[in-house]
Order: sequence, then C-alpha cells, then structure tokens
Amino acid sequence: MALIVHKYGGTSMGSTERIRNVARRVAKWARAGRRMVVVPSAMSGETNRLLALAKELQPDLPDAASLREIDAIAATGEQVSVGLLALALHREGVPAVSYAGWQVPVQTDSAFGKARIGHIEGARVRADLDAGKVVIVTGFQGLDPQGNVTTLGRGGSDTSAVAVAAALGADECLIYTDVDGVYTTDPRIVPEARRLHTISFEEMLEMASLGSKVLQIRSVEFAGKYRVPTRVLSSFTPWDIPLDEEARSGTLITFEEDEKMEQAVVSGIAFNRDEAKITILGVPDKPGIAFQILGPVADANIDIDVIIQNVSRDGRTDFSFTVHRNDYARTMELLKGQVAPAIGATELLGDPKICKVSIVGIGMRSHVGVASRMFRTLSEEGINIQMISTSEIKTSVVIDEKYMELAVRALHKAFDLELDKAVGSV
Amino acid sequence: MALIVHKYGGTSMGSTERIRNVARRVAKWARAGRRMVVVPSAMSGETNRLLALAKELQPDLPDAASLREIDAIAATGEQVSVGLLALALHREGVPAVSYAGWQVPVQTDSAFGKARIGHIEGARVRADLDAGKVVIVTGFQGLDPQGNVTTLGRGGSDTSAVAVAAALGADECLIYTDVDGVYTTDPRIVPEARRLHTISFEEMLEMASLGSKVLQIRSVEFAGKYRVPTRVLSSFTPWDIPLDEEARSGTLITFEEDEKMEQAVVSGIAFNRDEAKITILGVPDKPGIAFQILGPVADANIDIDVIIQNVSRDGRTDFSFTVHRNDYARTMELLKGQVAPAIGATELLGDPKICKVSIVGIGMRSHVGVASRMFRTLSEEGINIQMISTSEIKTSVVIDEKYMELAVRALHKAFDLELDKAVGSV
Repeated sequence: MALIVHKYGGTSMGSTERIRNVARRVAKWARAGRRMVVVPSAMSGETNRLLALAKELQPDLPDAASLREIDAIAATGEQVSVGLLALALHREGVPAVSYAGWQVPVQTDSAFGKARIGHIEGARVRADLDAGKVVIVTGFQGLDPQGNVTTLGRGGSDTSAVAVAAALGADECLIYTDVDGVYTTDPRIVPEARRLHTISFEEMLEMASLGSKVLQIRSVEFAGKYRVPTRVLSSFTPWDIPLDEEARSGTLITFEEDEKMEQAVVSGIAFNRDEAKITILGVPDKPGIAFQILGPVADANIDIDVIIQNVSRDGRTDFSFTVHRNDYARTMELLKGQVAPAIGATELLGDPKICKVSIVGIGMRSHVGVASRMFRTLSEEGINIQMISTSEIKTSVVIDEKYMELAVRALHKAFDLELDKAVGSV
Repeated sequence: MALIVHKYGGTSMGSTERIRNVARRVAKWARAGRRMVVVPSAMSGETNRLLALAKELQPDLPDAASLREIDAIAATGEQVSVGLLALALHREGVPAVSYAGWQVPVQTDSAFGKARIGHIEGARVRADLDAGKVVIVTGFQGLDPQGNVTTLGRGGSDTSAVAVAAALGADECLIYTDVDGVYTTDPRIVPEARRLHTISFEEMLEMASLGSKVLQIRSVEFAGKYRVPTRVLSSFTPWDIPLDEEARSGTLITFEEDEKMEQAVVSGIAFNRDEAKITILGVPDKPGIAFQILGPVADANIDIDVIIQNVSRDGRTDFSFTVHRNDYARTMELLKGQVAPAIGATELLGDPKICKVSIVGIGMRSHVGVASRMFRTLSEEGINIQMISTSEIKTSVVIDEKYMELAVRALHKAFDLELDKAVGSV
C-alpha cells in the first residue's frame, strides 16, 4: 500500500470547520487504501499570537535561555492543531493518533528558532500505520539532544513534512498550499504565466531561493537530498473531488531527468524585490579581503545573497553584494564604522531600491546563448543591468526596482513561457 | 538554603501584566536566597478555550483514543504559561528555566483526563537549582508509561505543586489562590467567619472533600502522604510586601499535633450544595446487595459521596446515597432501568434539592457530645435532618437545600467559631 504524507498550512487549519474539511480529505485518502501521515501547521494566527505574548514579557533581544523558552511556547501551536485534527478524524470514524515532535522523536540540533532536523525515528509511526491508523505529526518542531523543544523557523512545517516522508520512505509528499502549483512566474505580474506540471528539483531550489515563496527552501533541499517525490497542490479544491484528479493536480518536483522529452531551456522567471545592493569601491586586491568585508556582516547575522567581485585594476577592485532590504541600514552602518576604514576602501555606495530577476532552467546547462538572450531582451526594454550573477541553471541580474514588472513580463515572453512547448512535461 | 515551591492559579497568570507581577514576586523570594520552584496554571480561560475547540471537533463522548488527544491539547495551556513566566524572570534578570511535565518527567498512569502522579524524577530540577536557576514546571500534566501526555483533571496544578514539593523535599509549598487562607466557613455566608492560621492535614482533607474548594482534594492527600508543609495564601497582596510578612500569611496545613495548645473542638463548617440524594426502599438485606446497587453506578463513572444503610426490618432495608447533582438524572435512569428491578426493590426515591453540611475538627476525636450539640442546634432552628454520616473528625448531615445558609450560620455560632479561642493556634 502506498504511503502518502500530506502537509497542510495554517490557513487550511484556520478554524474548526476547516480542520473538519482537512479530516474529510485525509479520510478520503485513507479509505482509498493509502497509508497516511499528516503534518499540519498551527491554526493561522496562533504562532504569531504566542510569539507576541513572549515578546511582551521579554522585549529584550533574547539570549539562548530565552530563545529556548520562546521555542517551547511557539511549538504548542502545532501541538494543539495535531490533536484537533486527530479528533476530527475520530469523528469521521477514522482511527488516528497524533504526536508532538518530541514524541516521534524528530531529532534536531539545538539552534533554537532555526533548528535543523537530524534523524527522525520512524518505528513508532510505522507501528501505528501497520495498525491501520492515520498518524499526525506536528510540523515546525523537534527535540534537541538535551531534551529541549526546538523549532525550525518560519515555514518549517514544509521541511518537517518532507523530512518525515524521507524517514518513512513515503511514495509521495503532498504539500497543500494556497497556490495550485509552481508557475513559470508570478501570475499577478504576468497573467499568461502557466502552471508547470513538473519541475526538476534543481529548478525548484532556484525558484524557492530566488523568492518564489511556494515552498520553504530547506524543504526543497530535503526533498532533493532524500529524493522525496514532492507535490505542491491547492488546498482550495473541494475535499470531495475524485482522488485520482487530486493526485494528478499541482506541480510535482522530480529527480529523474526525462531524456525522452524535449527539455525546456528556461522553466521560469523568479524575482525578489526585497534586496538592497552595497558596493565598496577601491578595495585593495589581496588575499583575505572578501572575508574581512563579509565576516563582520555574517557575524551580525545578516544573510548575504549575491556577491560580485570583478577583476582588479591598479591593485584595487570593487566589491558588491546584496542583503535583505531590512538589513540594509544596519549593514551600511557596520561597513561605514568598522569595515571600510579597516581595509582602506575609497568609497561606500548603497542602493536599497533594487531588485533581482532570474531566469531558471535545467536546460540552460546545455544551451548556449540563453544568458545573452536575457541581456538582449532587457536592453531592448531600455533596462540597465547593474549586476550579473550566474549558476549552472540560473542567470540573475540586479536592476532598478522600478523596472521589475517590465523585466519579468519581457523575459516571460522572450523565453516563450506562455506556450505549451515550454513545459518540461505534461 | 530553603527550597520553596510556589503555585499560581490561572487568575494570577491571566495576562502578561499579571505574569510580570508573578515574576517579580518569585524574584523577590529568589533574591532573598530561597531555592525556588514554581508551578503555574494555564492563563485563565485558556484551558476552557482549548477544550471547547476539541469539543467542536469531537462532540461525541470521547473514547480512549480521543481522550488521549484532548489531554495533549489541554496540556499546552500550561506549556505556554511556564515559558512566559520564564521569559518574565529573564527580563527581571533572574536565571530561570521551564519544563513541561514530560520533560521532568512527572510520571503518571494512563487515565487520560484524571491521571494520577506516580514518580517525579527530581534530578534535572535539582541540577538547575544547584546552578542557581528558578525552575518552572507545568502543573496539571504528566507523562504515562507509553510516552503519552496526560492531564490530572481540573485543579490538578495544586496536586502537581505539592507532588513536586514532595519529590524535592521542599521546605514549604505555597499555594497562591484567590482567597487569603482557610476559613472557619465561607465568609459570604457567615460574615464572622475567621481565617485559621493553621489547620491539621486531616481537617483540611475533610474541608476540601466537603466542598470548601480552596485546594483540590488530591493535593491535600499528597501533602498528607508526604508530609509537605503546605500554605494557602492570597495572590492579591502586592508583590513587593515584605517577604517575612508574606511567608507568615494565609493558612498553614500542619502534620504535628501541637500538644501544648488547647485543641479546638471544631475547626470549621463545610458545606456542599451540589449533591442529590437517592434512596432505594425495600432492598432485600443480603450479602452483595450494596455492590449490586453501586457497582453499575461506579461503572458509569458516577462518583458517590455519602452512603447510608440502616439496620434491616423483616429482611428488607433502605439504602441511600448521594451523587453530584449533575449526575442525578443519569443515576436515577440507571437505577430505574437496570438496578431496582434486578434486586427486587419496592420503591425508588430521589431528591436533587438537598445539601450537605458538616462540622470538621480534629478535637472531635476526644470530645463527646459534639455531634449531639450539632443536632440540637439544627433542631432549635427547625431544620429536619434527612441523613447523618460521621467519621472520626467530621459529622455530616444532609438537609433540605433551602436551610443551608441558616444551618451554617447557626452551627458557626454554636461552636464559637467567630471567637479567637476556637483557633488551633495563632
């Protein structure tokens, strides 16, 4: 019998009526003979409510001791929702049992608030599945080696679901979300955007990391590492649509490259408008300089995205990178006060009004001219490219924020993404 | 250094501002050099909110599988409040760590919703105390041998606090409540009622079991079994009153009878208006008949309080008992349908409009005439006694509900409880 993992977000669990519908959907799968594991999020708003209470009592920047408490508090949201879903299944006449992360256990490291999953012990869950029960496991949380409750950070339930699917060797992990799949780009910007029936793991990884917020990036990494067939599909379909139809809907993340099919050159256009650009001019070009600049930034817990350093002239070079826009002021201050004087840079420039637009496609590996087509398209629209960064399956450019929609639309058209021929598979 | 356990109810934990005040009070004790363990309830209303959600999803009478889920859901209320209190203590600059029942662990049996505490492992808590931390432990819950979360039932946090105090060998367990101690009777009925500075464990047990709802009865049993000095005191005093004054306030439950002091004959008047009386007339007087009557009632999970069977006449006797008023209709139905026909009883009588009034006092052991003074007092007020039941330290009567206040006032006066000479000690 196929073993299936379902993951439901906070919106799907947002009220007792919605939880009842989740139970009915799960019951449909269980009655069709599937062995079912379900990973629900907390009821929508609940995690925020709990974190707000914590913040009221400890408004200071939390130290390790406080972070531990905040995790224990936040983790209760999912502990309530798994119990409620189990009760709703009982009411449907379906045997079901729920477990908190510590009960499975889902073992993690001790990085409170952003813990990483190590091992998941599957014995208890398997015994319940063998006994014919639906097993419900909390998302978002685990147990560290010292017996403390940890949380995985926002969106962590996606990762929990994929990790549980990997640990149990599930046949498929279905992530029910408020979108009905992965699109060639955001349909709010390009109405012709088309849903992909499949997307390769690598492409999905780039789409997720580039700001297409369908799945948490770590869940995609997990899916890739353990080759878990993972499907993104809509939670808004009626619970009683035929199971076959539901099982084929959404977008499936695949791991086998299908040789027989014409590989699309570009699968999608991703973008991110939450970035800011910082450039340090006249940096002495000598070993260790990148670390001298970025070390203090990383120490301040600021994530860095694109990093660009071009060849030097006259022993000096220009060094650019991007950070999240929320970290822009803090990063500039840090560089002005400490870093730039220390390394003897001549000037510090910053621009928070930029965005990043990327073309993503596994086909780029074997197709020359993809990047140049991208640059030509932007040039024809009169859009100046400020930075370029490439990987095997994506090409990203940093441009003025005001051109973002224009760039995305032009690229979507230039790479024929609105047409069926662009699809990896159907 | 003295080890002190504090227990705070849901009202004390009712808002972040109140939690902050609990933290300040605990900090005062910790700064005065006490080793502190705190057992808080869930924020007021939270347990009800959680149970209401559960009830919405599973309105049927819950089976064991559903009871397990309801316990896991309900237990999260305290898991949130311990974390919040820890954060508030961190903010006060006091090192603190919180544990859920399963982390200590507080081991219980598997009777979901009314679990009983077995063993409490104190090693982890002691290590934290040795490291100078305030330790906060969830009330109301534990872990069964199969690793399931259990709850102790309503008011279970009192029991948790006393059990933790017993396990750690605490010097005193302070139960902060919305009353400032144990009174000779309810001051709302008798304005002259007086707070007792001390009360013996046995008297407290009777007072609690007879409806003076200051402490959960199981917590008193625990206090007695492990001889935990337990103090009931007000949570409404300002947090910053001098510690010495606070430490002497309320009512202390004692275990040593103080030989030097004049023992009061009667310490208090307890009453309970939530009872209903049932009488089966013409029961054949033969072995096993009490079990035939009460067995099915107990099997239906109905608690029985007073049981009376008088001597038989002509081989038949009358059998009476009381149950909680909420269980009255169900009990009558059970008796009418199954029990009475089976045993060949001649008639079934019931009255839900009764109450029980009791005089309680350790001095009754050695004083004759206490019961007769009670009966004379009631007689002088024209109150008819329907049932009488006695133990070593209490005498209870069942009377018409409408006479309850009158009976309590008359007895309080008859036993001189408003005067200082009635106090066990000062």
